[in-house]
Amino acid sequence: MYFARVKLTKTLDTQLFNYLQSYLTERRKNLFNEIVKNRTRYFTVVTEDVYQLHNTSAVMRTCDVFGIQDLHIVEENLGKRIDKEIAMGAQKWVSLHRYSKIKDCVKHLKEKGYKIIATTPHHKANRLQDFDITTPAAFFFGKESEGLSNTVIEEADGFLTIPMYGFTESLNISVSVAIILQTLVEKLKNSDIDWQLSENEQKEIVFQWTKKTIKSVDEIINRYYLKN
Amino acid sequence: MYFARVKLTKTLDTQLFNYLQSYLTERRKNLFNEIVKNRTRYFTVVTEDVYQLHNTSAVMRTCDVFGIQDLHIVEENLGKRIDKEIAMGAQKWVSLHRYSKIKDCVKHLKEKGYKIIATTPHHKANRLQDFDITTPAAFFFGKESEGLSNTVIEEADGFLTIPMYGFTESLNISVSVAIILQTLVEKLKNSDIDWQLSENEQKEIVFQWTKKTIKSVDEIINRYYLKN
Repeated sequence: MYFARVKLTKTLDTQLFNYLQSYLTERRKNLFNEIVKNRTRYFTVVTEDVYQLHNTSAVMRTCDVFGIQDLHIVEENLGKRIDKEIAMGAQKWVSLHRYSKIKDCVKHLKEKGYKIIATTPHHKANRLQDFDITTPAAFFFGKESEGLSNTVIEEADGFLTIPMYGFTESLNISVSVAIILQTLVEKLKNSDIDWQLSENEQKEIVFQWTKKTIKSVDEIINRYYLKN
Repeated sequence: MYFARVKLTKTLDTQLFNYLQSYLTERRKNLFNEIVKNRTRYFTVVTEDVYQLHNTSAVMRTCDVFGIQDLHIVEENLGKRIDKEIAMGAQKWVSLHRYSKIKDCVKHLKEKGYKIIATTPHHKANRLQDFDITTPAAFFFGKESEGLSNTVIEEADGFLTIPMYGFTESLNISVSVAIILQTLVEKLKNSDIDWQLSENEQKEIVFQWTKKTIKSVDEIINRYYLKN
């Protein structure tokens, strides 16, 4: 049984996939197929030591809304604060990647080919509207009070700021994420860039969503493997 | 004395203005002059029965950031919930206009020449990116759970929606306001539209900011009128 579960996480079992999909309504299946076509890994979002759970939760929701499949959460100085939020299951549609070291996260994303983009109100030279989207980018957002760590600032390939015209000197993190994603995803969709997930990636994500949607899915999978 | 204060609210007393400005540092004066040039009344924002104070507060901050001078707050079914927030003085840079009836607010803004724009996730035909900015517009945002009232929907000259691509069916109000203002203010600044305040309006607003910045300003004004 254990072996079966391990196998599941490695390759997509098409027969099992089809079997589990039979538990979904047509409406739900169509919804999954429609939404996954708008998912992308071309952009990704990283939060560094964001303290308030409602902020992390709002960032997850915003990633879902604008089709960002991967959210990277670094909790170097906080410990694992988001457990409760995840347990509540409110945000099961975005893939979460968690790190206890910011360096590991930066290294991982560089290896994947992402430009490291530090979002900050302090570097006024690089305005959101002028941001070059021709290479994949990971947008780093810092903690409420202090912003991003020196590690991110030093490793950054670019800095991004939202032009602001008033007395207020910083925007709430969930607002910043939303403005940046909305603007750049719209730009991406109007470009010639191949930003969609591959067919395999799409199928893998629909498989994850399917599993999360079905009640007692573990028992159903176990029974499936006993029979097949 | 009472007469003097009444007079103040009606016309700008240039001598008093100059006198009060002498209480400010050069840096502060320059900041006021720079920020007021980015203020506009071409767009305005209305919140209808928004329940959570932190949401109203976030909307005020967003208006400030993107240069929207006027925020209209309708509290038809809530009573005067924002008193405490205002008393805290956190948001002294935006002009607040309060109404206990939504009809009064709509009428007032129509008379001022604004198009009534209902923001809603349910009218998918009118996307943010395609919004026509050639006439002044008031953007109405509804309460967290129920959205806008029928009054607004019936009186609306147009509907505006932010395209969303995920499972989440609505965005937090402060996020919606931020996305809409950021996109449309940027469009406005790149247009030929005369969106800035008149010189008189700018002076009046700097006068209000100046008064709010100086400690014990009422005593200072009273002393000024006794001498002059």
